Amino acid sequence: MTTGRLIVIGGDAAGMSAASKVRREQPQREIVVFERSPHTSYSACGMPYFIAGLIDSADKLVARSPEKFRDKFNIDAWVQHEVLTIDPSTQRLLVRNLINGSETLEAYDQLLIATGAQAIFPPLPGNEADGIFSLSTLASGIKVYEFMDKELPRSAVVVGGGYIGLEMAEALVRQGLQVSLIEKGEQVMGTLDPDMGMLVSEALREIGVTLYLNESLTDYETSNNKVTGVVTDQRTLPADLVIVGLGTRPNTGLAKEAGLLLGEKGSIRVNPRQQSSVPNIWAAGDCAESFHLISRKPFHVALGTVANKQGNVAGINLSGGYATFPGVVGTAVSKICKYEVARTGLTERELTALGLQYTTATTKTKTRAGYYPGAGWIMVKLLAEQGTGRLLGGQIVGLEGAAKRIDVLATALTAGMTVQQIVDLDLSYAPPFSPVWDPVQTAARQLVG
Amino acid sequence: MTTGRLIVIGGDAAGMSAASKVRREQPQREIVVFERSPHTSYSACGMPYFIAGLIDSADKLVARSPEKFRDKFNIDAWVQHEVLTIDPSTQRLLVRNLINGSETLEAYDQLLIATGAQAIFPPLPGNEADGIFSLSTLASGIKVYEFMDKELPRSAVVVGGGYIGLEMAEALVRQGLQVSLIEKGEQVMGTLDPDMGMLVSEALREIGVTLYLNESLTDYETSNNKVTGVVTDQRTLPADLVIVGLGTRPNTGLAKEAGLLLGEKGSIRVNPRQQSSVPNIWAAGDCAESFHLISRKPFHVALGTVANKQGNVAGINLSGGYATFPGVVGTAVSKICKYEVARTGLTERELTALGLQYTTATTKTKTRAGYYPGAGWIMVKLLAEQGTGRLLGGQIVGLEGAAKRIDVLATALTAGMTVQQIVDLDLSYAPPFSPVWDPVQTAARQLVG
Repeated sequence: MTTGRLIVIGGDAAGMSAASKVRREQPQREIVVFERSPHTSYSACGMPYFIAGLIDSADKLVARSPEKFRDKFNIDAWVQHEVLTIDPSTQRLLVRNLINGSETLEAYDQLLIATGAQAIFPPLPGNEADGIFSLSTLASGIKVYEFMDKELPRSAVVVGGGYIGLEMAEALVRQGLQVSLIEKGEQVMGTLDPDMGMLVSEALREIGVTLYLNESLTDYETSNNKVTGVVTDQRTLPADLVIVGLGTRPNTGLAKEAGLLLGEKGSIRVNPRQQSSVPNIWAAGDCAESFHLISRKPFHVALGTVANKQGNVAGINLSGGYATFPGVVGTAVSKICKYEVARTGLTERELTALGLQYTTATTKTKTRAGYYPGAGWIMVKLLAEQGTGRLLGGQIVGLEGAAKRIDVLATALTAGMTVQQIVDLDLSYAPPFSPVWDPVQTAARQLVG
Repeated sequence: MTTGRLIVIGGDAAGMSAASKVRREQPQREIVVFERSPHTSYSACGMPYFIAGLIDSADKLVARSPEKFRDKFNIDAWVQHEVLTIDPSTQRLLVRNLINGSETLEAYDQLLIATGAQAIFPPLPGNEADGIFSLSTLASGIKVYEFMDKELPRSAVVVGGGYIGLEMAEALVRQGLQVSLIEKGEQVMGTLDPDMGMLVSEALREIGVTLYLNESLTDYETSNNKVTGVVTDQRTLPADLVIVGLGTRPNTGLAKEAGLLLGEKGSIRVNPRQQSSVPNIWAAGDCAESFHLISRKPFHVALGTVANKQGNVAGINLSGGYATFPGVVGTAVSKICKYEVARTGLTERELTALGLQYTTATTKTKTRAGYYPGAGWIMVKLLAEQGTGRLLGGQIVGLEGAAKRIDVLATALTAGMTVQQIVDLDLSYAPPFSPVWDPVQTAARQLVG
């Protein structure tokens, strides 16, 4: 695995992390990257802030351009090149140049598939109408921005109340649009328990988003192939712009056709070194399977942190080192206007599905000493295993300074700590930063009793 | 230990945590508290912010007044009552009412000593002059405030560059004074390594504090019993106000006279349940010894977090439960204007003194995604054990959002994690909160290589 031509399919977080790692370890190795979109190494997570106008150019979301990879890192990075097929028996790829339509066969000794994830669109006839977008690649984010710049939409409907949906709802409010959001669940942010998600729903209403909960997209209204409305199972909402934020699925059509074993949600099954079921083919990032340390099961999540870690692990192994992906504990964080939202571990629903018994505590305290200027509320919910007291999950909603506290819980989860051990932690305290008992400890104290 | 009259000496964090815990567990138990100062349960850490004018009344620093303890919690809390002697053989205290001078004998069945710490003053003749203050009790903080209000000092010298010294330097700058700070070490914040302390020194200079490093207080200049200057081993500095911030020592004169075994820095030696060496006498908080989990040695630190934890442990044990103090890992945090400073574990000097071999990495990254508004620099220094890679310490200096990341390191230290395990952590990422690799992980990655 350590010599010969390395081809990477996909030029974002996982693919370029791997390619860069191999380059550092093997200055002479031939490394070729094919990326379907026009961009490499961009921050997909940054798109809502670009659309919100907080970042003045999409270029700023690009960490490294193809030119930089070529010139500075000697990585042969081709954008707008789509890999059409993988033939594991001959170790060749059929690659199309999307600019001129030409096709070539490319031989690999080692192949890393890092094709990411794609937005889920419900199969509706109006899908192709102008004004309906998802956000997955940077190119898709730029399309939304350009559409808004040109068409000056006044009303928007966001479909789906997950991270991207909520961040986009805020972005559109910031740009002055009337924003509605439809969510089929009883609360937005279905990755939290409903009691915590409710706080996020309130936050959205506060900034002027009209929420339609327990409501599903059924159709679009269009006129001259432009979207004019969103039809739900309960009403029709006018819309000049629709953002579909129903999550993503692993982009694994190529891998499936090549005979690779797939796992959770259709992601590529890999061993802990990121090797697929087919010799000399590796996978990393949003297209690859992960492992959940708390549920102890295969898991799929499309997140930049995981993509970078898996890419780095693949790069180490592809260049003769040894590394394994450590798994995840389900950590995620988001900012919705002034509200910070974070989670780690498992939710009540997830625990119940696993047959685990748990106790919970939810405490509302302050982000700083109560008397210190800027102290805001923070709600912490902890879930601990019945009997053992072992932490199983944590959720945080609150004002400035709230969210990053989830990292203490993520670390404690990884270490298998009990809530008593969290109470016992020597966490930092000074009035500008925390009450004397950190909010995560106050919640843990309640569980200890 | 669970019946009879409980007397607590000292009415701040440790004493009142214990008293409150006993009250919750034992609604009928007789609990008497004697506190020498006029206040109970106040935030000593909040005093610099009160003096800075960020908090409009000292009352806000009082979590619970003696009246509240008496009326709401049925805890017989007496302020301005000083315990003069403890007689363990008869289990009696001699107590003086500081208001009218009367003295009484008070019998205890169980006694908790929570007498805190006192500011260290060098034995200089001018110590009693007007305008020279330390900060330990809330009363001492109020004295500084009143002096400033009445005397309108224009120049101040802060002696000592520890947490209190630096926070006070900032507070005095905020109040428009010309502030000099003398520190006998080569950098301020001697609880950090000098390379990190240097960043804090720069921050102080930036806000207008004149620093005199490697310089020691030798005398005061006074006129009509008012301070007019500070004499160092190198110069004389004019001063209308002097803040002595040379640290604290455990307030254990009473305990020593009563024959209790003392430990680190003269603190009261206790077992993990907070029991002293003398039957029926317990100790908790700044006057009591602690234990350092990384050096594996007895340790003393005067911090509100420790005082609350030890008080809570004592309270559980005094009311028939069972709890042990878990020890500390040396975590502390402070805010110096826009700079955030934090540490945990051991420094280079401390590791060297213990004979431990270590490697270090220091990385400068950003608090948020580089393109996100408000991203500021953050410097993280990690120290890991040679060979094993086990984390031994961490230090952070940076802008908004930097400091609280120390808690991940404190948690990792407690769990005995290696730097590789820190790289592997599933920490939260979104552009408003972090780069895709959290700064603590970037530093850990450098150590992993």
